[in-house]
Amino acid sequence: MSKSSRLQGIFTPNLVPLDSRGNINEPELRKYIDWLIERGVHGLYPNGSTGEFTRFTFEERLRTVEIIADQTRGRVPILAGAAEANVKETLRACEHYYRMGVRAVAIVAPFYYKLGPKSVYAYFKEIGQNTPIDVTLYNIPMFASPIDVPTVQRLSEECEKIVAIKDSSGDIPHMIRMIQAVRPNRPEFAFFTGWDAALMPMLLVGCDGGTNASSGVVPEITRKLYDLTMAHRIDEARQVQYDLVKLFDTMIYSAEFPEGFRAAVELRGFRMGVGRQPMSAEQRTDLGTLSTTLQCMLSAHGFVNEPVGGCPAGKGAAKSGDVNAAEVGAIVSQVVAELSRRGLL
Amino acid sequence: MSKSSRLQGIFTPNLVPLDSRGNINEPELRKYIDWLIERGVHGLYPNGSTGEFTRFTFEERLRTVEIIADQTRGRVPILAGAAEANVKETLRACEHYYRMGVRAVAIVAPFYYKLGPKSVYAYFKEIGQNTPIDVTLYNIPMFASPIDVPTVQRLSEECEKIVAIKDSSGDIPHMIRMIQAVRPNRPEFAFFTGWDAALMPMLLVGCDGGTNASSGVVPEITRKLYDLTMAHRIDEARQVQYDLVKLFDTMIYSAEFPEGFRAAVELRGFRMGVGRQPMSAEQRTDLGTLSTTLQCMLSAHGFVNEPVGGCPAGKGAAKSGDVNAAEVGAIVSQVVAELSRRGLL
Amino acid sequence: MSKSSRLQGIFTPNLVPLDSRGNINEPELRKYIDWLIERGVHGLYPNGSTGEFTRFTFEERLRTVEIIADQTRGRVPILAGAAEANVKETLRACEHYYRMGVRAVAIVAPFYYKLGPKSVYAYFKEIGQNTPIDVTLYNIPMFASPIDVPTVQRLSEECEKIVAIKDSSGDIPHMIRMIQAVRPNRPEFAFFTGWDAALMPMLLVGCDGGTNASSGVVPEITRKLYDLTMAHRIDEARQVQYDLVKLFDTMIYSAEFPEGFRAAVELRGFRMGVGRQPMSAEQRTDLGTLSTTLQCMLSAHGFVNEPVGGCPAGKGAAKSGDVNAAEVGAIVSQVVAELSRRGLL
Amino acid sequence: MSKSSRLQGIFTPNLVPLDSRGNINEPELRKYIDWLIERGVHGLYPNGSTGEFTRFTFEERLRTVEIIADQTRGRVPILAGAAEANVKETLRACEHYYRMGVRAVAIVAPFYYKLGPKSVYAYFKEIGQNTPIDVTLYNIPMFASPIDVPTVQRLSEECEKIVAIKDSSGDIPHMIRMIQAVRPNRPEFAFFTGWDAALMPMLLVGCDGGTNASSGVVPEITRKLYDLTMAHRIDEARQVQYDLVKLFDTMIYSAEFPEGFRAAVELRGFRMGVGRQPMSAEQRTDLGTLSTTLQCMLSAHGFVNEPVGGCPAGKGAAKSGDVNAAEVGAIVSQVVAELSRRGLL
Repeated sequence: MSKSSRLQGIFTPNLVPLDSRGNINEPELRKYIDWLIERGVHGLYPNGSTGEFTRFTFEERLRTVEIIADQTRGRVPILAGAAEANVKETLRACEHYYRMGVRAVAIVAPFYYKLGPKSVYAYFKEIGQNTPIDVTLYNIPMFASPIDVPTVQRLSEECEKIVAIKDSSGDIPHMIRMIQAVRPNRPEFAFFTGWDAALMPMLLVGCDGGTNASSGVVPEITRKLYDLTMAHRIDEARQVQYDLVKLFDTMIYSAEFPEGFRAAVELRGFRMGVGRQPMSAEQRTDLGTLSTTLQCMLSAHGFVNEPVGGCPAGKGAAKSGDVNAAEVGAIVSQVVAELSRRGLL
Repeated sequence: MSKSSRLQGIFTPNLVPLDSRGNINEPELRKYIDWLIERGVHGLYPNGSTGEFTRFTFEERLRTVEIIADQTRGRVPILAGAAEANVKETLRACEHYYRMGVRAVAIVAPFYYKLGPKSVYAYFKEIGQNTPIDVTLYNIPMFASPIDVPTVQRLSEECEKIVAIKDSSGDIPHMIRMIQAVRPNRPEFAFFTGWDAALMPMLLVGCDGGTNASSGVVPEITRKLYDLTMAHRIDEARQVQYDLVKLFDTMIYSAEFPEGFRAAVELRGFRMGVGRQPMSAEQRTDLGTLSTTLQCMLSAHGFVNEPVGGCPAGKGAAKSGDVNAAEVGAIVSQVVAELSRRGLL
Repeated sequence: MSKSSRLQGIFTPNLVPLDSRGNINEPELRKYIDWLIERGVHGLYPNGSTGEFTRFTFEERLRTVEIIADQTRGRVPILAGAAEANVKETLRACEHYYRMGVRAVAIVAPFYYKLGPKSVYAYFKEIGQNTPIDVTLYNIPMFASPIDVPTVQRLSEECEKIVAIKDSSGDIPHMIRMIQAVRPNRPEFAFFTGWDAALMPMLLVGCDGGTNASSGVVPEITRKLYDLTMAHRIDEARQVQYDLVKLFDTMIYSAEFPEGFRAAVELRGFRMGVGRQPMSAEQRTDLGTLSTTLQCMLSAHGFVNEPVGGCPAGKGAAKSGDVNAAEVGAIVSQVVAELSRRGLL
Repeated sequence: MSKSSRLQGIFTPNLVPLDSRGNINEPELRKYIDWLIERGVHGLYPNGSTGEFTRFTFEERLRTVEIIADQTRGRVPILAGAAEANVKETLRACEHYYRMGVRAVAIVAPFYYKLGPKSVYAYFKEIGQNTPIDVTLYNIPMFASPIDVPTVQRLSEECEKIVAIKDSSGDIPHMIRMIQAVRPNRPEFAFFTGWDAALMPMLLVGCDGGTNASSGVVPEITRKLYDLTMAHRIDEARQVQYDLVKLFDTMIYSAEFPEGFRAAVELRGFRMGVGRQPMSAEQRTDLGTLSTTLQCMLSAHGFVNEPVGGCPAGKGAAKSGDVNAAEVGAIVSQVVAELSRRGLL
C-alpha cells in the first residue's frame, strides 16, 4: 500500500463520546462519524491527542478504531493512532489496525521521557521495519520527544512503510526544511500540519493537508479553507483562516485541551459526556461560560442558534471582531504564558 | 496508616531486570532487592521513572510490585508507583497495592498533556478521596504536569491520605516553600527529593529523605551521605556529595535515562538485560564506553575491579578529580543543552 | 507624518562595516547603501539587531544614521533604531533622528530585564506620548521583553505616533492575532516580519513587509520574493522562499549572529572588517568554512564566482538540493538546540 | 592584587537612589552606604543588576562607583560592575575603576544576543588578558549569555586576573560542578551566589559568599545567616533562611525587579525616588500594597513600625506563617509562570 497515492486533505482527529458511566458511547460515536463524513472531511483520525489516547486502555483504543472503521465502511481513509507502551505493544496494535483495514497508522514519538534524535530514530526504525501497515510519524514537541529534520529524512529514506509525517509544531520554516529534505527522494511522502491556526500558510508552503481538531467542530469551515487555499484564492482563504484562528484560539486556550473542543461538538448536537480528566467546580463553571462564547461564534456562522440571552452586539463574537478583542487577546496571552510554563510552547 | 510515623530515609527507585525475551527477570529482581536491603536502603520504590513504568503494561507493573513485596517481606517499607491511564485505573492499582501490603503509593501528576494547577488539584483530590492507601504526590516537572506549592498545600489540608511529596525538580527554594506551606498544619507530611545532585543541601533545608536512582547503584554511598548529613557532619558530607555529583552526572547525562544506571547496576553484578527503548548501533557503542568510565569510578570506591586496561592515572576517574574534568564538564554542558531542548530542564 | 501612507516593502537591516581600527567605515557604508538601493530594497533600517546596535555607543549609533540619511538623500525611507538606556535617552535619540529626516524610528522593548506586559505598555506609552517622530514597535522575544497582542492593540489605539510593529518571532498565528486586533481601528498601521524563513507566508496572511537581514546579502532575491508573493504567484514564490530558507539557515545558524551575514556581504564585495564581538581561533576557522559554503550558494544564483576548488556537484549547494541536505539539517538541528539552551527559541 | 586573599562574605548589590529629576541622589547614596557598612555587610557591589546598570549611562555608572568608593574609604572592599557596550569600552571602565581603588570588577557575560560558550570564552579571555584590575565573572543566565562550567574552568586556568565568579542561577549542582572544576588549580578563586533563596545551602556546599539584593534591605539578617551557616549552626541557620525566602519572594515576585527592593529600602528610611522604568497607574497602586506587606514583614523582625492599620494577626506576615501562605504561594506560582514566559526561569 506504500506505493499508493499520497495521503492528502483534512483528516479529523476524533473525539470520543462517553456515556454516563464513562465508557465509549458507541451509538453517539457512529452518529458523529456519519455527520463528519457528510460534511466533507477527507479522512478520520482516531487515537490522536484530540482523542485523548493516553486516557484510554489498550482495549479501548482498539475498540474505538474498530467502531469507526465499521461505521466508515471505506467512505474515507482512516489514520489510526497506534502508540503503545513499547515497540512490541505498538507493533501488536499495528497488526490489529492492519486487519481492520485502516489506511495507515500514526505513531507519536516516545513521550514522558523525552528522547534525543538517536533514540527517536531507533524507535521508529524498529517499527518501520516490522510494521504490516503504512506509518505516519507524529511530531508534537509540546507533548512528546521531538522528531528532527535529519531523523525524518533518514527514516523516509530507509523505511518504505513510513509514508507521511504529521507535525503539530506550527513552525513554518521547520515544515519547509522537512519538505526540502524528504520530497526529492520520496515524492509520495505526505506532510500534514496539526496546527489549525497556521493551516492556510502551511498548505501554501507545500503541506498536503491537516489533521486539525477544529475540523471535528466545523468541518464545513476547514473544508472550505482547504479548497480555497488549494485553489490559490488567497484573499478569500485568508479571511476564513482569520475566522478559524479566533475559533481555534477560543477552543484551545480557554480550557484544558481538548475540553473546549468537546464543548463545541456538544453544541453541534452530540452528547460527548463527562471527560476522563477530573475538573474542579470552578473549571466546570468556566466551561459553561466558554460554551456560551462558542455558541455565539458558531451562531455567527449559522451553524447553531444564538444562546438564550443573545450574543454581544447581537450578532456573535466571531463576526463582531472588535467587541471582545482586547479581552480575548488578554486571555490568549495569559494562556500562552501558562502553556509556556508547562513547557508546551 | 496515615497517622503512622513520617516516611523518611533513602527509598531506592527500582530498575527492572529483563530476561532474554524482554520480560521481567524475576530471579534477578529478587536477588537485587536482597542486595539493596542488605546495603542499608531505607525503602524501595518500584514503578518510578527509574523503573520505566511507562514502558510496561498494567499487568507488568502489578507483577513488579508483587515480586518486590514478596521478596522484601516487610524488612523495609515499599512505595509503589501507581499512575495509570486515568483516575479509575489508578484507583484500581491502588487497591491492588493496598492488598499487597505496601506502605504507600506514589502517583505522578498527569503527563503527555501538561495540565494547569486546577486540573492537577482535581486529579489528586479525586484520588485522595477514594484511595484505600496512603498517597505520595510525585512532582517531576521535566516529565509531567507540575504540582505547584498552593496545590500541594491545599491537597495536604484536604486529604488525610495524602502523606508526602516526592519532588524531582532539584529546586531548593521550591522545596523550602513547600515545607513552609505544609508542615505547620501537617507535621507528619514527608518531603523527598529525587534529585541526587542536591541530596545533602535538600536534607539540610528540611527534607525527610530521597528517592534517588543512585542508591540503586551505590547504596553504600547514598546511605553514608544521608547519615553524615543528618548528623550535621557537614565537611564530610560535602565531600561525599561532591563524589556523588560526579557519578550521578556521568550516569544521567551520558546516555538516555535510565540506561546509564542500568549499565552501572550491571557492574555491581546484576544482569539487567536489554532495555525496552531501542538503541542505535552508535548508542550501543557509546554505552560500552560509558560502562568503562563507570567501572573506573566504582573501582575508585572499591566497589568493583578496574576494567582491563586500567583507568586514567591508574586510580579511577572519581578520585582523580582533575584528569577528565574539562571533558566531563563539556559533556555535561552539551547534554544539559540537549535536555533543555527536549524540555527536560 | 502619522497620517501618511502605510509603511510597506522590504526594509534592509543595515550591517555596519568597520575599519582596521574597529570604527565605522564611512566610505564602505556609503558604497553599500547605494548598492542596496540600486538593487531594489524599499527602505533601510540602521541600528537594528543585525546592525549590532548594542555594541556601539550612543554617539556611534547617531553617526550611523547620519551617514545613511545623508547618502540616501530621500531615495528610500529610513527606519532608525532608537532604543537607548532609558526613556529619556531614547527620546533624545528620537529628536536627533527626527531632525535627520528619517521616516520613523524602531524601538525594541526593554531588554536585559525582561519585563511583563504592564511595564512594556508603560514604557512605550511614555515614548508614544512624547516622540516627535513616528514609532515602530519592535518585538523580538528571543532577545527582549515580549510585546503581547493586547499591548500592541492598546498602544495602537492610544498613540497616533505609533504606526507599525516589526515582529521577529516568526510565529504566524501571533501575526494574525495582531492584525486582527489592530487593523479594524488603525487601517494604516503596518506589520513587518523580521523572520526571513517565513517571509512569503507572512505576507500572504497579511503582513505589509519585512525587515530581513537576508535582504542585505541578496536584495535581488528578497525583492523577487516580495513581488511574486504580492502578485499571488504562489508556486514561483514558494520556490524562492525555499531557496531563501537554505541561505538564511546557513547564515543564521552557522555562526554567532550576525557574523554569517557579515561574511556573506563580504562575498558581495564589501569590506566589513572584524566584528566587535571577539572570536576564538576555532570560530575564525569555522567562519572561513562558512564563507566557502556561502560562496557556493551565492554562485549558484549567479551573484558571485565559485570559490577556488569548486563547489559540491560543481554547481553550488543552493541548487543541488540533496547534496548536503542531511548535513545542513543536522547542523540546523544542533544549533536550534543550542539556541534553545540560550533561551533564543 | 590577584594573589591576595580570597574574596568572601556578603557583598551588597547597591540600589541607586534618584532625586526628583531622576538623577543620582548623591547625599542619599552616601548615607545609605554608611548605613550598610555599619550593619555588617562584608563588601559593596555597585552597577549590578540590582543597581539597574543598563538604565544608566556610561558616565553615570562611573559616577556611582566614584561616590561609593569615596564614601567607603576602604572600610570594606568594592566590587564594581564594569560591563559596557563592547570589550574596548569595558576595558576603559576597568581602567577607571582600577584608578578609583576598587578591589575588583564584576563583568556580566554579553547580553541581548545570547552567545554560545566559544564566544563567551573569547570575550572574557580578551578582557582577562588586558584588564588592570581583578575580574569576577558574572553568570546570570536568566538575563545574559550563560557561562558554562568548562568555560569557567578554562578562564580560571588561563587568566590569573580572573579571580571569582558570581552565579545567580540558584542551581546547586551547577555550583558544585564549578567548584570541583576550578578549586583544585585555583584554590584562591572565589564563588559567590546571587540567589538569596538558596544562600544557606550554597554556603554549605562550598560557596565563599553571596551578592544578595536582600542584604541591601536587611543586612542584619543576611549577615546573621552567613555567620550561623559558616559556624554550622544548621538548625538556627535554616530558620533564618526560611524567613529570608519569604521576604525575598515577596520583594522579587511582587513587582518588576528591583522595584520591590527599592520599596523595602524606602521602609528602612532612605528616599529612593522614582525608578527609571515607567510604571502604569495600576503598577503604582500594586507597589503601594506591596509596601504595606513588606512593612509588616520588616516590623515582625523589629526593623520598622507596623503600618497604620496594623498587620494580619497583629504581628506581621513574616512570623504568622499560615496567615497568607496560600495567597503568597499563589502569587509566587503565577509569577514564576510569568517569569518562565519571559525566559527568566
